[in-house]
Amino acid sequence: MRKVCFVITSHIHYARSKRILRELRHHPEIELQIIVGASAILPNYGDVLRLLEADGFEADEIITMTVEGGNPVAMSKTTGLGIIEFTTAFHNLKPDVVIVRGDRYEVLAAAVAATYLNIPVAHIEGGDVSGSIDESVRHAVTKLSHIHFTTTDQAAERVRRMGEQPDYVFNFGAPELELVTENHFEVTNEFINRIGVGDAVDLNKSFIMVIQHPVTTERDNRENIQKTLDAILELEIPTVWFWPNVDAGTDQISNAIRSFREHHNPSHIRFIKFLPAEEFLALLSKSACLVGNSSAGIKESSYFGLPVVNIGSRQSGRARAENVADVDYNKEQIMSAVQRQIAAGRYPSSQLYCKADTAKNIVDTISKVKLYTQKRFKD
Amino acid sequence: MRKVCFVITSHIHYARSKRILRELRHHPEIELQIIVGASAILPNYGDVLRLLEADGFEADEIITMTVEGGNPVAMSKTTGLGIIEFTTAFHNLKPDVVIVRGDRYEVLAAAVAATYLNIPVAHIEGGDVSGSIDESVRHAVTKLSHIHFTTTDQAAERVRRMGEQPDYVFNFGAPELELVTENHFEVTNEFINRIGVGDAVDLNKSFIMVIQHPVTTERDNRENIQKTLDAILELEIPTVWFWPNVDAGTDQISNAIRSFREHHNPSHIRFIKFLPAEEFLALLSKSACLVGNSSAGIKESSYFGLPVVNIGSRQSGRARAENVADVDYNKEQIMSAVQRQIAAGRYPSSQLYCKADTAKNIVDTISKVKLYTQKRFKD
Amino acid sequence: MRKVCFVITSHIHYARSKRILRELRHHPEIELQIIVGASAILPNYGDVLRLLEADGFEADEIITMTVEGGNPVAMSKTTGLGIIEFTTAFHNLKPDVVIVRGDRYEVLAAAVAATYLNIPVAHIEGGDVSGSIDESVRHAVTKLSHIHFTTTDQAAERVRRMGEQPDYVFNFGAPELELVTENHFEVTNEFINRIGVGDAVDLNKSFIMVIQHPVTTERDNRENIQKTLDAILELEIPTVWFWPNVDAGTDQISNAIRSFREHHNPSHIRFIKFLPAEEFLALLSKSACLVGNSSAGIKESSYFGLPVVNIGSRQSGRARAENVADVDYNKEQIMSAVQRQIAAGRYPSSQLYCKADTAKNIVDTISKVKLYTQKRFKD
Amino acid sequence: MRKVCFVITSHIHYARSKRILRELRHHPEIELQIIVGASAILPNYGDVLRLLEADGFEADEIITMTVEGGNPVAMSKTTGLGIIEFTTAFHNLKPDVVIVRGDRYEVLAAAVAATYLNIPVAHIEGGDVSGSIDESVRHAVTKLSHIHFTTTDQAAERVRRMGEQPDYVFNFGAPELELVTENHFEVTNEFINRIGVGDAVDLNKSFIMVIQHPVTTERDNRENIQKTLDAILELEIPTVWFWPNVDAGTDQISNAIRSFREHHNPSHIRFIKFLPAEEFLALLSKSACLVGNSSAGIKESSYFGLPVVNIGSRQSGRARAENVADVDYNKEQIMSAVQRQIAAGRYPSSQLYCKADTAKNIVDTISKVKLYTQKRFKD
Repeated sequence: MRKVCFVITSHIHYARSKRILRELRHHPEIELQIIVGASAILPNYGDVLRLLEADGFEADEIITMTVEGGNPVAMSKTTGLGIIEFTTAFHNLKPDVVIVRGDRYEVLAAAVAATYLNIPVAHIEGGDVSGSIDESVRHAVTKLSHIHFTTTDQAAERVRRMGEQPDYVFNFGAPELELVTENHFEVTNEFINRIGVGDAVDLNKSFIMVIQHPVTTERDNRENIQKTLDAILELEIPTVWFWPNVDAGTDQISNAIRSFREHHNPSHIRFIKFLPAEEFLALLSKSACLVGNSSAGIKESSYFGLPVVNIGSRQSGRARAENVADVDYNKEQIMSAVQRQIAAGRYPSSQLYCKADTAKNIVDTISKVKLYTQKRFKD
Repeated sequence: MRKVCFVITSHIHYARSKRILRELRHHPEIELQIIVGASAILPNYGDVLRLLEADGFEADEIITMTVEGGNPVAMSKTTGLGIIEFTTAFHNLKPDVVIVRGDRYEVLAAAVAATYLNIPVAHIEGGDVSGSIDESVRHAVTKLSHIHFTTTDQAAERVRRMGEQPDYVFNFGAPELELVTENHFEVTNEFINRIGVGDAVDLNKSFIMVIQHPVTTERDNRENIQKTLDAILELEIPTVWFWPNVDAGTDQISNAIRSFREHHNPSHIRFIKFLPAEEFLALLSKSACLVGNSSAGIKESSYFGLPVVNIGSRQSGRARAENVADVDYNKEQIMSAVQRQIAAGRYPSSQLYCKADTAKNIVDTISKVKLYTQKRFKD
Repeated sequence: MRKVCFVITSHIHYARSKRILRELRHHPEIELQIIVGASAILPNYGDVLRLLEADGFEADEIITMTVEGGNPVAMSKTTGLGIIEFTTAFHNLKPDVVIVRGDRYEVLAAAVAATYLNIPVAHIEGGDVSGSIDESVRHAVTKLSHIHFTTTDQAAERVRRMGEQPDYVFNFGAPELELVTENHFEVTNEFINRIGVGDAVDLNKSFIMVIQHPVTTERDNRENIQKTLDAILELEIPTVWFWPNVDAGTDQISNAIRSFREHHNPSHIRFIKFLPAEEFLALLSKSACLVGNSSAGIKESSYFGLPVVNIGSRQSGRARAENVADVDYNKEQIMSAVQRQIAAGRYPSSQLYCKADTAKNIVDTISKVKLYTQKRFKD
Repeated sequence: MRKVCFVITSHIHYARSKRILRELRHHPEIELQIIVGASAILPNYGDVLRLLEADGFEADEIITMTVEGGNPVAMSKTTGLGIIEFTTAFHNLKPDVVIVRGDRYEVLAAAVAATYLNIPVAHIEGGDVSGSIDESVRHAVTKLSHIHFTTTDQAAERVRRMGEQPDYVFNFGAPELELVTENHFEVTNEFINRIGVGDAVDLNKSFIMVIQHPVTTERDNRENIQKTLDAILELEIPTVWFWPNVDAGTDQISNAIRSFREHHNPSHIRFIKFLPAEEFLALLSKSACLVGNSSAGIKESSYFGLPVVNIGSRQSGRARAENVADVDYNKEQIMSAVQRQIAAGRYPSSQLYCKADTAKNIVDTISKVKLYTQKRFKD
């Protein structure tokens, strides 16, 4: 039995990993270990522990590591504390291999701790290109990892170019897209209006979604979000707006939203912290346009053919389908792009990030690939 | 004035960086900041603070971060604590750019902290290939860094292949080699026999040196060092033996040496913790052979043409001159290689890692290169 | 010049310490150092850094130490991280004496760090008795401190009984009461209704205030706050309600309040995060009754003769004037006590915690008392 | 079944707690949990993990927390890291009660973590009076603890005076004395000369022991130890000398000893890191005099009637029998006191710290005492 440790550090990460977790649980030669930590254990950011339990999983270790502050100092100290905590967790669980995903600081913390404990790391979603600090962290995690599950051929090529062993680079597509293609999710007016703040939204009429996170490498997160707030205010289209994630700059964005609400008391916007994965996908599939800088605009939306207005640098460099219109932090650009995208309507569904059996292939590979610890740059 | 922060985390690192520090201090457009931390502040591993002061430098921040244990857990927690501490130091000093060097965990800690604080990182010695955990850490630091000073053309090529901006990859040679070429250092019998333990060594007669550090990715550090101890015991050649660095596995090696000393009470070996840079180079230049797995066997020794017996995987992959004989962890192989290398005598001096004006070129570049924070993989 | 380091770890602590800070700044033989940390640097809990600047002070060190979670694990890890951070700050500032105040975990962290660095600690507000974890922490801080400024004679007697040197126990009264007696503060409808959420409140009409913090040693914080919410809902008296502090249990209370707001949408309650010291005192002096478990109900309110309904165990044991009515976590008890207290009207002003020249006496003592590090239990 | 967690943080602590651990293991209503951490897991300070295993115990959690440096900053950061680590361990084990012992920083870390997690703390050896930082820490731990097992009546009286509940203060004597009275331990020349460094010692002839630890509240640890080294050198009596513990100042002492050894190469002194409990007691019972500042000179030695020369302030204030001669840091005083004490020979055995059934009484009490979390100062 191979002990496989899956690391969950945010609500969205859990949502995107469900299929893999199910495969891991059922694989006869795998003993699944789950670590839940960082914002995934903060009720304000989605209580993953309760969701896990509801889905029949159990957390083997819970990691408290988020240093409050919403600024670069707090983010950096969170990473340091995270390494200290993941070291203890891995040392207790003694997994044969650790699976991490993405490009956030919690993931870097887990990868560093596993590295020093000589535990091989499998990394999902390496080789992508984007903006923000994520761009640096993603590739650093690649260079600490031993097994790579990329989501596009281009990403796989980049991982190989970075000197990784070609035999250990696999492109099985994006796991979250596999969940999307299940395509049978529902969300009701009642559900959406029971959570969050602001006026009720009617999902049977046309509405848009806004998800705009901080860009840690930029100093003007407050100014930037203001452009989006002004645009959405003036557009007067019913809107479901998601609060930002915990990255440095989150306080500037949250404060801008709060002050906007107090000042304008907008009647066409509902503000929501987060949704369970299924309801989120149902909402996405129903909406007329997604505005902001979430990777859901690039990935999940490509399958739906959902018109997206992508703002600023956060997703720049990521492979995208034709559904995405890129704009600057500029009220007029945002407004006209939203109007054009809504008018255009649905794009054809794209298979850019989709492959069949993503989760199954990842788990099969994890179960039988020969594990190694000593890395060596492949010239 | 550009504020340039130089990070010193070990005695050997300080020794190798003196020329750069001198250039930084004298550059009219640079304000030098120095952070000293990790083993560099531990008296047992070389009291860098006292050396700095003697050389006319001052530490702006002192970082206490080494978690005791000499095992993987301690090493990993040291990295985590180091990030927490470097974050505070960088936040206090607010440098425009940070210079780090090498591939150790303290360097990873500094690079991660600088990254999250949006401070550009200049990295010396990226692109090398080696064994041990250093191989992973070195390339991860490259992917977090913005300016790269490699020590060979091959290393520069690897850094570019990893997606770094070609305009920011410079090969000015290895700084420590520049110090070596000063070539005027002295060490006396009196000096060497006042420090360390064991019998006196006469540097006017033929002697060899042993420096063998732990390999963190291997489990048998005690067994491996035993082979070297047995070989040196049987060779009966006067020997100056250096205690290992603080990497995981250091306790196994130290215990093996202690038990060897108690058991065999060898009269031809002097055990030394560390030497100041100048005395170390003088000793190297006088010795008949260097045995073990130190990078000094690959780098400094290449210039001296010093015969080297390189044991095991720690330096595998690093570009080397003809002076190096590679052997396994095997008593007979070590013994016969040492005898052959001593018989062979000095090799021609190699320029493999040498370039003129290394420190000057690095500092000139640092003083005027356009700084940036947002990285982007160069396809 | 004696270097005196004043530690500020929360908004309320800053408010209560202004007079002391002013005296410290103006004392000719004192060099004032200020450390701001913990929730005092979190914008959501009162941006002390901005207030300090407005008042002409400067933070010499800023400490990021709050681990998010609002539960016992997060609180404990915050204390640990706090010690690591205060150690760095004290080591950088090298004060001759550190002044801390109160009974919270940030204060324990500061006291432990100062203790190990052999820096004498002056502690304000030792010897009080209360509930919650504060009761343990307060006395532990006393046993780590060298100079004691208590706020009542009874407290001074307890500190002496604990074995502290009688010569170093001073009762100069409570500093926050001295601020209260300045008595000239104003707060306007406009001010109060520009911040917080909920319906506008008219301060010219009768209103009450609610401040109820978690009790960390009890498990039922959510259930307990529900009683207060139900009581206030049914009372239908205009209310200014303050969100809870960051102690373990804060999330249960915040969630209960949020769900209460969504469910009942009460039109007579305004919810506020915090107020500047002056506006807070003005509000207190205008209100008809204070409900909850804040120490302001025991201390500041005693001077105003403000009727207080004190709920549960958090303040049990603290010396109190006749203005306080104690009740259990019980809706009916709370309702009838509020009605009785409002009907009773103002009590006579009490001098229980008041002495003249509190801040001046504290600072004079700090400036000239003989400092010592080695403690010795006084039998 | 009551889950009782026993915390072991040093080799000497383990030695002194064996009887309690045996009683805990065999008690039918107790489930024993063991946490081993701090210097107890460092091979250089006694490999408690191996000893535990040999004695049939198992560590449920292992805590890596010692920050290297041997100075006040390292000691303070160790305490902070320790709280972070103990929090995780206690959260994993969820004990009903934690037992800690003594006055060191690891114990403070454990007590703080348990306090914030609302786990009752039982403290052994509260109420003693001594010098060094231990004096502050010991009483702070008392104020965080719920159940007190003191070792003298005088100590019990102090604990009650500090406001602890009289029903929870028990004086059952010192556990280590109970081990001493077993009185059947042996140590051989062969054993003692196989470990440590220096010349062989013959235990069948008259010899003395030296144990001198740093005093953290004094700045002159190096100067102070020099007096002892000079005295012992000149006395020329065969000596077994123990290296100091890890407290701040340990490096000054270690360096002084190393430089003394290199310089004088004394033939009558054997230097030892530590001994197992049994061999240590056997050595103590055989020796002619104990010199230094160890609590073993006050406690264990009182039962043996062993002449003790106690140097400096570390043990000042602790109740003592007639076997102790107190001297200053002064070569002449030390020399003449050692000569007088050896001439005086054995003192009568003292029962000062001895009571029958100490371990049994402690464990019986732990098994059935009513547990509580909310503390309250007893006026």
